[in-house]
Amino acid sequence: MSTKATSTRRRKAAAPALPPDPDGRRRAVIEAVQPQIDGGRFPICRVEGEGVTVRADAFGDGHDVVRVQLLDRPAGGRWSVTEMTPLVNDAWTGEFRVGGVGEHEYTLRAWVDHFATWLRGLGKKVDAGVDVSLELREGALLLRDAADRADGTDRDVLTALAKGLDGPGPAEERAAAALDGTAAAVASRYPDLSLATELDRPLRVRVDRERARFSSWYELFPRSWSPTEGAHGTLADVADQLDYVAGLGFNVVYLPPIHPIGASHRKGRNNAVEAEPGDEGSPWAIGAADGGHDAVHASLGTREDLRALCDAARGKGMEIALDLALQCSPDHPWVTEHPDWFIQRPDGSIQYAENPPKKYQDIYPINFETDDWQALWRAIHAVVVGWIGDGVRIFRVDNPHTKPFAFWEWLIRVVQEAHPDVLFLAEAFTRPKVMKRLAKLGFSQSYTYFAWRNTRYELTEYFTELTRTEQHEYFRPNVWPNTPDILTEHLQHGGRPAFISRAVLAGTLAASYGIYGPAFELCEGAAREHGSEEYLDSEKYEIRRRDRDDPRSIAWLIRRVNEARNTHPALQTNATLRFHGSDNDRLLVYSKTDPAGGDTVLCVVNVDPYNTAAGWTHLDLGALGLGDEPFQVHDVLGGARYLWQGPYNYVELDPHVLPAHLFVIRHRARTENDFDYYL
Amino acid sequence: MSTKATSTRRRKAAAPALPPDPDGRRRAVIEAVQPQIDGGRFPICRVEGEGVTVRADAFGDGHDVVRVQLLDRPAGGRWSVTEMTPLVNDAWTGEFRVGGVGEHEYTLRAWVDHFATWLRGLGKKVDAGVDVSLELREGALLLRDAADRADGTDRDVLTALAKGLDGPGPAEERAAAALDGTAAAVASRYPDLSLATELDRPLRVRVDRERARFSSWYELFPRSWSPTEGAHGTLADVADQLDYVAGLGFNVVYLPPIHPIGASHRKGRNNAVEAEPGDEGSPWAIGAADGGHDAVHASLGTREDLRALCDAARGKGMEIALDLALQCSPDHPWVTEHPDWFIQRPDGSIQYAENPPKKYQDIYPINFETDDWQALWRAIHAVVVGWIGDGVRIFRVDNPHTKPFAFWEWLIRVVQEAHPDVLFLAEAFTRPKVMKRLAKLGFSQSYTYFAWRNTRYELTEYFTELTRTEQHEYFRPNVWPNTPDILTEHLQHGGRPAFISRAVLAGTLAASYGIYGPAFELCEGAAREHGSEEYLDSEKYEIRRRDRDDPRSIAWLIRRVNEARNTHPALQTNATLRFHGSDNDRLLVYSKTDPAGGDTVLCVVNVDPYNTAAGWTHLDLGALGLGDEPFQVHDVLGGARYLWQGPYNYVELDPHVLPAHLFVIRHRARTENDFDYYL
Repeated sequence: MSTKATSTRRRKAAAPALPPDPDGRRRAVIEAVQPQIDGGRFPICRVEGEGVTVRADAFGDGHDVVRVQLLDRPAGGRWSVTEMTPLVNDAWTGEFRVGGVGEHEYTLRAWVDHFATWLRGLGKKVDAGVDVSLELREGALLLRDAADRADGTDRDVLTALAKGLDGPGPAEERAAAALDGTAAAVASRYPDLSLATELDRPLRVRVDRERARFSSWYELFPRSWSPTEGAHGTLADVADQLDYVAGLGFNVVYLPPIHPIGASHRKGRNNAVEAEPGDEGSPWAIGAADGGHDAVHASLGTREDLRALCDAARGKGMEIALDLALQCSPDHPWVTEHPDWFIQRPDGSIQYAENPPKKYQDIYPINFETDDWQALWRAIHAVVVGWIGDGVRIFRVDNPHTKPFAFWEWLIRVVQEAHPDVLFLAEAFTRPKVMKRLAKLGFSQSYTYFAWRNTRYELTEYFTELTRTEQHEYFRPNVWPNTPDILTEHLQHGGRPAFISRAVLAGTLAASYGIYGPAFELCEGAAREHGSEEYLDSEKYEIRRRDRDDPRSIAWLIRRVNEARNTHPALQTNATLRFHGSDNDRLLVYSKTDPAGGDTVLCVVNVDPYNTAAGWTHLDLGALGLGDEPFQVHDVLGGARYLWQGPYNYVELDPHVLPAHLFVIRHRARTENDFDYYL
Repeated sequence: MSTKATSTRRRKAAAPALPPDPDGRRRAVIEAVQPQIDGGRFPICRVEGEGVTVRADAFGDGHDVVRVQLLDRPAGGRWSVTEMTPLVNDAWTGEFRVGGVGEHEYTLRAWVDHFATWLRGLGKKVDAGVDVSLELREGALLLRDAADRADGTDRDVLTALAKGLDGPGPAEERAAAALDGTAAAVASRYPDLSLATELDRPLRVRVDRERARFSSWYELFPRSWSPTEGAHGTLADVADQLDYVAGLGFNVVYLPPIHPIGASHRKGRNNAVEAEPGDEGSPWAIGAADGGHDAVHASLGTREDLRALCDAARGKGMEIALDLALQCSPDHPWVTEHPDWFIQRPDGSIQYAENPPKKYQDIYPINFETDDWQALWRAIHAVVVGWIGDGVRIFRVDNPHTKPFAFWEWLIRVVQEAHPDVLFLAEAFTRPKVMKRLAKLGFSQSYTYFAWRNTRYELTEYFTELTRTEQHEYFRPNVWPNTPDILTEHLQHGGRPAFISRAVLAGTLAASYGIYGPAFELCEGAAREHGSEEYLDSEKYEIRRRDRDDPRSIAWLIRRVNEARNTHPALQTNATLRFHGSDNDRLLVYSKTDPAGGDTVLCVVNVDPYNTAAGWTHLDLGALGLGDEPFQVHDVLGGARYLWQGPYNYVELDPHVLPAHLFVIRHRARTENDFDYYL
């Protein structure tokens, strides 16, 4: 029997230590607070003015009345207090709204409310006809305590109420006065919080500006944007042609690295190991004799030109995003100034990038395990702050998952402490938990697996995960149908219908999306080789002038998608995305609604780029705010209008005409005389 | 545009603070560690020798090899290290086994393993025929570092391996030597942990003795156990009759409070507000002139008698559980010695218990919010330690949910620090989250809602929650078909078949169960009034002598259930409970298997006490460790044997004969000549 075995281990009982006062008397507990990322280790994120709905379990021992409050504040500011509402099963809910950009905090407190408990008991006793004269004296004591905590008029009111309670009149009348609501209302404002329980530490919200949630990106290689055949494009050329991008409706123009490009081991066209004379090299092979991450490639222009470009973009409602690619060409100044920031091999050479047996001799990875890591971090910080000084407020970070998490958490925090309007997009095409970690630690947005999710099942599963799980609290997806590295097989083989449907899906499933143009709108689908996602004659390694006026361009479609995004708040959020059914699994049906109410958009996309798909929708009318009445759906892509009613409505989409409907739902107006009277 | 608005808030950039060295270089992260209760706020629980399977996500930046280890130790002892195994998607798993009773700890560490990364790269390069002479020099450096961390022979081995690596032979041969497994094996024992990541703090396991997991309780009122008609039973009488309880197969004898009973406002028979002369009163109205919680009721005997009873029980493989009911009769010594431990009303009286408008004037609740709470806690601690001194190792705690959580967490901790073999059963018939909180904070076992779960659906849902969710990590259910307070309608109306089926369900669904006897085995079903769960002529208020030899007794059945429990390890755990299907929803089918392997028990219970239920089982053969071969099921309740095969087998249970099968599964022996050759 184990008792015997353990009794030999019994230690001599010492006077046991007690918890510090008043912890032993805090009777309420708070558990299971949501949202809360990894026990509060990471903040949730919101944009300015958004709401946060908090749920928690809170209860005390016994049967006394427990009160729970939600407290929130801009970090370092004053707490606002919101009374939480009980749900079933000891769960509570409350909501607050964040203010401007920066850090916001929230916490909870819960306590046993003796006055409310007393009042509840009084009511029951009065109902049961029990004598309550002693109870009234107790209530008076509680009200006097409340008066001591109150100020001004309330203090007088509470004192008067207390006086009335144990005053001379008949007990029934005094009890009725206590129960009339005034005492409860006034006393509730002055609770005794001396034994209240709070969370160990506040939870955090990272509040970003609106662009973190809603953004439409256009990626372009400035060197290809010269109006002159054979010339190297410049930042000034881009500035001159911003109307094209603005006209498409984008609000972020993202430039691959604009820094000097290394000459050593430079890659040639189509990623040839040896460059030919005149080859421009990859912008991601950063650094040359004339500078590194803090310099502008001389052929592109100057920092002045970048500043001018930022200003010009801002003037057209757009902004410039720069690439932050933390790797160096062998010619980067850091290689000679800080050889210890790289891995040095036994023969004195510096370790180039490799994925054995592949070698990338034009790239030196930075060694973040260097003993001099602190100087390295400071240098990168200085690079970022420098570009911010030139007007850049968005950074697209190349391969953040190959640099330490701790570094990013620090960099983003310190940059945003000084510049809370700066945003970072993580180009983390990597494993799911790594992507999530980067989002948790501070990245404002993240690339996704969207490019490889093509079927109805895949898209439904993936966007449900992105928008309906805890991930939605910290991970903002930015979906790209193509990038200079990613020309999917779906686009290679699906042709124009695939480009159109992917543009519609990207622009309507996600509040942030981007395309790499003009390759995208020109439906460029040629890959370097079978089975590769690399573009043939990739712009990564050469200048590619294009005829943006080519009649095959789907710029008109992209313009309509962005116009819908810019005019319909429903498309500027992921919070309200809902999938609807259909009896044809090629037809993906989904809707979004403006959380502020009203505006609803309904999309139907034929995900098969080859064949016509026809079938019946199975709409969740409740999610659309609709009832049995007919409603009009107006396709802002194709222009058609249909009068629908109920969940089942016929759809037929020929991908070679237009593979998608982007419907605005118009409710019937009061005047029902005419078909067009839908608002 | 928000950029403008926020730029006015821009603060002047100061030199940003850096994390302390080497935190900025710790590249591995650990997330989502399971099991972990409320972020490590509470321990998980196990009994001596049980295993803990730990899962976590761990990964680093980039593509280097990450290693993850699980560390565990008895609190304050030396860490044992277990290498964790990678699963898919950056998840890892590992297992450790706890030792003796007391607190155990576990934590994780993860780091980037440069030697393993190097070795992986070397292998790929060798396979690709790349020259590796420089790589071999790098490997030699890594091995020399490992040698510096090693001792004895391993140090010599590593030094020799390093020497060989950059020695004179052909590179291919040196590479082959590095890849032969020895270097990997030896070097892996001496990792560079200088940049390893660990959890912020270890997670905890509360290790109890086996009785915490497996216990069979028999509750009895000693005052009813006198062999003499009309006499007040004593602790000595109970000691004399322990063979009856031991013969039924129980291992815990639980006594309602054995303390002096108050006279003031004493309740009479059937809870009458006024006691008649001679009424014994409720044992839960604790305290009289001759003592309180630390005294034995004079009519029951003395502390010596209790000590003798504890010894006698232990001699028969049982132990005594006492009731810890923290409330006082108006005559309790604490009322005069410590009036401030109670709520004092404005007229100087002490607040009695009430549930308005009901009054319980024989009970004074203790006021745990008293300013003198620390003395109160110490006094209760002294009471518990006193009974421990008399040999008591199990306390059944009355209504713990009406005393503060912080108090229980402290009391159980300090008691178990000195007496780690002491167990506490929470009689918390309250809301789910309150019950769970009490289990988390330290109660070894808890009462459950079992008494009110009667249908197949209810039982399946409830026991799935208890055994297959996180709750299983900290909450040990103790299920009771009846208690002195609970005579369910199911028992009132279901008669003998209901008593039998509830006994079988209790004893086989849960590793811990109890009955209040002899009322239970005598199938007493008379309630005080319609709609009440109170017994008629409840033993709580009077002495009830019973004829335990009444032929209607189902003692024989309970004996068989307990015999099965005592001989089949499968029934001593909840970890392996699995529900199987059947095509009749009156037939509940479930199994349990000994986690150590082999022993499997299969139960089929007709949950309808009125009608015969017949149907086909839908067995999950895999969960039973069975294949296509026939197997024998031997009913240890009724004695019958059946030869079954496959998932579908016919069952017919007439509740008026026997409403349950408790099958032991016997696999066919190698010698197949005879029906009986099943083992």
